Amino acid sequence: MTKTPVAVLGATGAVGQTFVRLLADHPWFELAAVAASERSTGKTYRDATRWIEGAMPDAAARMLVQPCDPMLVKAPIVFSALDASVAGDIEPRFAEAGAFVLSNAKNFRMEPDVPLVVPEVNGEHLSLIAAQRVARGWPGAIVTNANCAATVAAMALAPLHQRYQLRRLFVATMQAVSGAGYPGVASLDILGNVIPYIGEEEPKIERELPKLLGRNAGWGIEPASFTVSALANRVAVEHGHTAVMAMEFATKPAVAEALETLRAWRGMDDVAGLPSAPRPPLQVFDQPDRPQPRRDVQAGNGMTVSVGRVREDPQFHLRMVAMGHNTIRGAAGGSILNAELLMARGLFPAHHIPLTTHR
Amino acid sequence: MTKTPVAVLGATGAVGQTFVRLLADHPWFELAAVAASERSTGKTYRDATRWIEGAMPDAAARMLVQPCDPMLVKAPIVFSALDASVAGDIEPRFAEAGAFVLSNAKNFRMEPDVPLVVPEVNGEHLSLIAAQRVARGWPGAIVTNANCAATVAAMALAPLHQRYQLRRLFVATMQAVSGAGYPGVASLDILGNVIPYIGEEEPKIERELPKLLGRNAGWGIEPASFTVSALANRVAVEHGHTAVMAMEFATKPAVAEALETLRAWRGMDDVAGLPSAPRPPLQVFDQPDRPQPRRDVQAGNGMTVSVGRVREDPQFHLRMVAMGHNTIRGAAGGSILNAELLMARGLFPAHHIPLTTHR
Amino acid sequence: MTKTPVAVLGATGAVGQTFVRLLADHPWFELAAVAASERSTGKTYRDATRWIEGAMPDAAARMLVQPCDPMLVKAPIVFSALDASVAGDIEPRFAEAGAFVLSNAKNFRMEPDVPLVVPEVNGEHLSLIAAQRVARGWPGAIVTNANCAATVAAMALAPLHQRYQLRRLFVATMQAVSGAGYPGVASLDILGNVIPYIGEEEPKIERELPKLLGRNAGWGIEPASFTVSALANRVAVEHGHTAVMAMEFATKPAVAEALETLRAWRGMDDVAGLPSAPRPPLQVFDQPDRPQPRRDVQAGNGMTVSVGRVREDPQFHLRMVAMGHNTIRGAAGGSILNAELLMARGLFPAHHIPLTTHR
Amino acid sequence: MTKTPVAVLGATGAVGQTFVRLLADHPWFELAAVAASERSTGKTYRDATRWIEGAMPDAAARMLVQPCDPMLVKAPIVFSALDASVAGDIEPRFAEAGAFVLSNAKNFRMEPDVPLVVPEVNGEHLSLIAAQRVARGWPGAIVTNANCAATVAAMALAPLHQRYQLRRLFVATMQAVSGAGYPGVASLDILGNVIPYIGEEEPKIERELPKLLGRNAGWGIEPASFTVSALANRVAVEHGHTAVMAMEFATKPAVAEALETLRAWRGMDDVAGLPSAPRPPLQVFDQPDRPQPRRDVQAGNGMTVSVGRVREDPQFHLRMVAMGHNTIRGAAGGSILNAELLMARGLFPAHHIPLTTHR
Repeated sequence: MTKTPVAVLGATGAVGQTFVRLLADHPWFELAAVAASERSTGKTYRDATRWIEGAMPDAAARMLVQPCDPMLVKAPIVFSALDASVAGDIEPRFAEAGAFVLSNAKNFRMEPDVPLVVPEVNGEHLSLIAAQRVARGWPGAIVTNANCAATVAAMALAPLHQRYQLRRLFVATMQAVSGAGYPGVASLDILGNVIPYIGEEEPKIERELPKLLGRNAGWGIEPASFTVSALANRVAVEHGHTAVMAMEFATKPAVAEALETLRAWRGMDDVAGLPSAPRPPLQVFDQPDRPQPRRDVQAGNGMTVSVGRVREDPQFHLRMVAMGHNTIRGAAGGSILNAELLMARGLFPAHHIPLTTHR
Repeated sequence: MTKTPVAVLGATGAVGQTFVRLLADHPWFELAAVAASERSTGKTYRDATRWIEGAMPDAAARMLVQPCDPMLVKAPIVFSALDASVAGDIEPRFAEAGAFVLSNAKNFRMEPDVPLVVPEVNGEHLSLIAAQRVARGWPGAIVTNANCAATVAAMALAPLHQRYQLRRLFVATMQAVSGAGYPGVASLDILGNVIPYIGEEEPKIERELPKLLGRNAGWGIEPASFTVSALANRVAVEHGHTAVMAMEFATKPAVAEALETLRAWRGMDDVAGLPSAPRPPLQVFDQPDRPQPRRDVQAGNGMTVSVGRVREDPQFHLRMVAMGHNTIRGAAGGSILNAELLMARGLFPAHHIPLTTHR
Repeated sequence: MTKTPVAVLGATGAVGQTFVRLLADHPWFELAAVAASERSTGKTYRDATRWIEGAMPDAAARMLVQPCDPMLVKAPIVFSALDASVAGDIEPRFAEAGAFVLSNAKNFRMEPDVPLVVPEVNGEHLSLIAAQRVARGWPGAIVTNANCAATVAAMALAPLHQRYQLRRLFVATMQAVSGAGYPGVASLDILGNVIPYIGEEEPKIERELPKLLGRNAGWGIEPASFTVSALANRVAVEHGHTAVMAMEFATKPAVAEALETLRAWRGMDDVAGLPSAPRPPLQVFDQPDRPQPRRDVQAGNGMTVSVGRVREDPQFHLRMVAMGHNTIRGAAGGSILNAELLMARGLFPAHHIPLTTHR
Repeated sequence: MTKTPVAVLGATGAVGQTFVRLLADHPWFELAAVAASERSTGKTYRDATRWIEGAMPDAAARMLVQPCDPMLVKAPIVFSALDASVAGDIEPRFAEAGAFVLSNAKNFRMEPDVPLVVPEVNGEHLSLIAAQRVARGWPGAIVTNANCAATVAAMALAPLHQRYQLRRLFVATMQAVSGAGYPGVASLDILGNVIPYIGEEEPKIERELPKLLGRNAGWGIEPASFTVSALANRVAVEHGHTAVMAMEFATKPAVAEALETLRAWRGMDDVAGLPSAPRPPLQVFDQPDRPQPRRDVQAGNGMTVSVGRVREDPQFHLRMVAMGHNTIRGAAGGSILNAELLMARGLFPAHHIPLTTHR
């Protein structure tokens, strides 16, 4: 089968590396270019990268790092792991040049015409791009995925919200150091420690969750009508964000019913068969002490979100714990699943699909 | 000055060791006996104990471990670090024999005639023991201190509750491994991990906080009229429980006013001058990323509770972070401060105070 | 293909769990029984086990745990993860009853007629069992694998010893907590700490290495004529023992030549194609800061040993670093590879090979 | 008493911060200036510093950070925590301007006329500065302290070398992350990991130890005639370098005798009474599992070196473990002790001692 060429922007950073690793054997996509800041361009990817994953894929290792310039990086699908400080400039240039940009940056997430998508949860929001392309005059488009902690919470909340309608949410997070990139958190700051603060994280969680669980009203996304308080913390975990939550709904669910709802949930119909989609999207634990990041983060190759400790709350209706892989489900893997869904839905313009790829 | 002899029950465990260390140079108390289970009796304290603190105090090291029997351990003040599985039997026998028992076990905390005390917060609850001694016919008494996480939260909540009256509270905790004793949490369970569960911890926090912040109505403690949801988690921290909280009050405080209230708070008047009382009881941070257990846990020799990130909450009124030393402020140090307050108030019967101690 | 039924003794412990996981999809072996101490017998494996790996294999989960009795556990191949305190009694009873026992316990490792085998290194030592069976009158046999740290070191030393003959060795180890079993090392002992002591570990490394690299002289193993000093340490690593070594040989190798020798090494000829054998057995790094346990321990599904930092030594000839997975390569995986080699060589008696297995 | 004003160069880094903390209540010295790179100058020390110790001393917090220029920073004693990349230029300029520079940088350590001093071990090397000042025409001088791991090893080796004469040494180190400064080691690199490499560390240990234990021959230091192999590793420890060593001497000591020698050692006579000198300089453990960094690093306020596991070695004579605080004993505290010794010996020129200090 002919694969679609894709590029990764910001390929040398932590999330960029996860993209490169996940794309190495992808059945539909073929890594055609890696791009990064000027400091890296012109070097091989091997030389430009302080690789922190297991073994660097050979094909990527030999590529020359390109500048983040759509004139030089010509792929119909572009995964962006760019820092927010540059994504605002670079991503639109790629969309303007015709690329579909799957972005992890926060810059465009809350724009009314930009879909913020966790496929199983709100894959139907992708249709926003039609209006986006018209309004902005772009042959391409920008699709964003959500903040990593918001993504994990949204996956666990979606089945319950769809059935009982969430009204109020408290969520406290314990987030892995890989969420801060590389080198990111200094070991002197986190060994044997908790940092009860992550810059700008709480507002992201609070505003992205209602959009993620909102309704595509045609003219845009009508955010879900619940309120959120987020309390974000950094802990000495490598990968895997844990969210402990208390939830109030329009209708109070019994615990057993909520568990059943979570277990039965499969997410959007047409997502389940995609190459990166875990089946089922959630794993639900009965053991009181699960999920745990170290033990459960690799479930579904990092794409499954784990849920447990569903129980009554003394003030709201229910409490539960959700945990998921922040750089896979909450970043690179989520973007790739978005791209797969775009292709599967034919939202990806036909003329972009290449007849052949040359390896 | 003549010191009052004291004994430690459960002296070989983690909290017992903290007692022994803190009592080594106490200005008012002198460690006269160490007691533990049959497995340890008859050995020297040095031989019976897998010591996990810095250096074992010499005097304690040479003591023979006694059985937990009031006929053999005759001290007017007895600090109990006993496990809940045996505290229910042993502690009353000491009270019956005339000792004042300062207990860390959960067994009697919620009894109507047993004070549950964090001195700066509710030192006036100690007067309950008069009725307790009459009702139970004990020449001695039992005074309990609270769950370690509840203690840390209560210290930070007290100033705000006293002024604005707490109505609703969400608290998520990130608790240190020393809270589970020694050997306690296996390294394979917690290295690079979070365990979103601590057995029986959440109900303790939820029921103890209203009693701690309640009013001594003479006939007993009238619990404060707020509700609590607790979400307790274990993290890879040695010492120091962190609690992130969202609070709703009868009257909404402005953030600046709340900060001022926290900073101005000195707790019960007659506690401030006691040997183990930190001055002030709270340290309040402006930096957004403090308190942190590793950096702040030793403040005030482990007796100061650190507070930070006081800010608005999107749903309730305020959010904040509190952190304190779980085996000092939340256990052994708290018990010792309770005993100091008993002595300072003269609640400790005169005939118990020895004329001389023989070293 | 018909699979050979196998049993695991000590199946509920940490190494026992690794056996159960590795055997779940083994192409030649089928887990037919799990056995453990009386505390566990009669329960399902799920109920008897505090499972610390990812997800428990379903088939094993439903098995009833058997006592470690050859009358009840009838499998031709028995993997033993028994503690040394009981292995000395139980393992011979299985051999006497006709089983081939693949043992991780230290008890029989240094017996003259018991092979101590790391297959790639000294697979030819397996032929010792012929004499063992005659001498002991056993229809079965005992084959041991080596101490986990000795195994990692032996794999890295073998190619160099075979070519240059090792004469003197200093080895300092930094060993993972999983080497102490579960619950094993208390988190209060190792978080942010190093323990420069592991009970009985240094003598094991010092006596096992010469036997592992020794010559099968027909009448027994002639130990290699080098001396060893081991300095064993525990560090806060989950899996993966790291050994830093200084080596003196009969002939001094140039660094480049030593690297070439390590890279070219394939181990015993007939091991390479076995199901659990990694290809190649060693991965050799040029980067100065590799191998590292967290990044390299999973290479070859935990069976590859990683080597790096080959350089001159100011006093001996060379220095290098070796790292491998202690509970896979150094324990369960090593035993399974031994069993595969026994089968492939036909050392496993024909009448033991079942015609069919019933699932 | 009038205190001598001192300055700290490189005051905002990790070692610089340790200097500032240790000098806050020093009985002889008064912190008069903090200096750092241009990025920090003109700011208050509070604003310029990402403070990673407990609480910043108030007096320092309010100081304006100065440039590292002897025209602006006029103190007779200057502690240098400068990076090696700039120390080579800056330190001589201060010596030329008349300051006594106590340096932690590697630049001048191996110069024949520059003392490399651990006071208890080789305080008599300080007299080298007379020649240094003549030869270089400096009114001031440069005195260096050793690499942090070499310092810890030298303290433990000195008593044995003085009595039995060391001939050969293998030393493997497990070094704390604070040795790499701040931010230093990324948490993604070290959580649950070992890095068997520290850039340039092994040659430093190998060349500095013979100088530290060498003899002041008047014309310069005659290095001790032993050889060293160092194998340096980074582990997930905050503070405290652990060194495991195998030693061969001219005369083989019995273990009991070696222990006695270590216990009896008091170091240079005139060091013992200095304000920062621990008494005794070594603490020697009998327990097999000590010293440990987390439990023993604070001994003697971080100035005591802990020794244990003295035992026979199968190849050399003895093995042992040494552990000490890398940023206190191995850096800032060691420099301060050097300055105290200079003053106590009167090597510090009289005209530099101020009559009064103005706060």
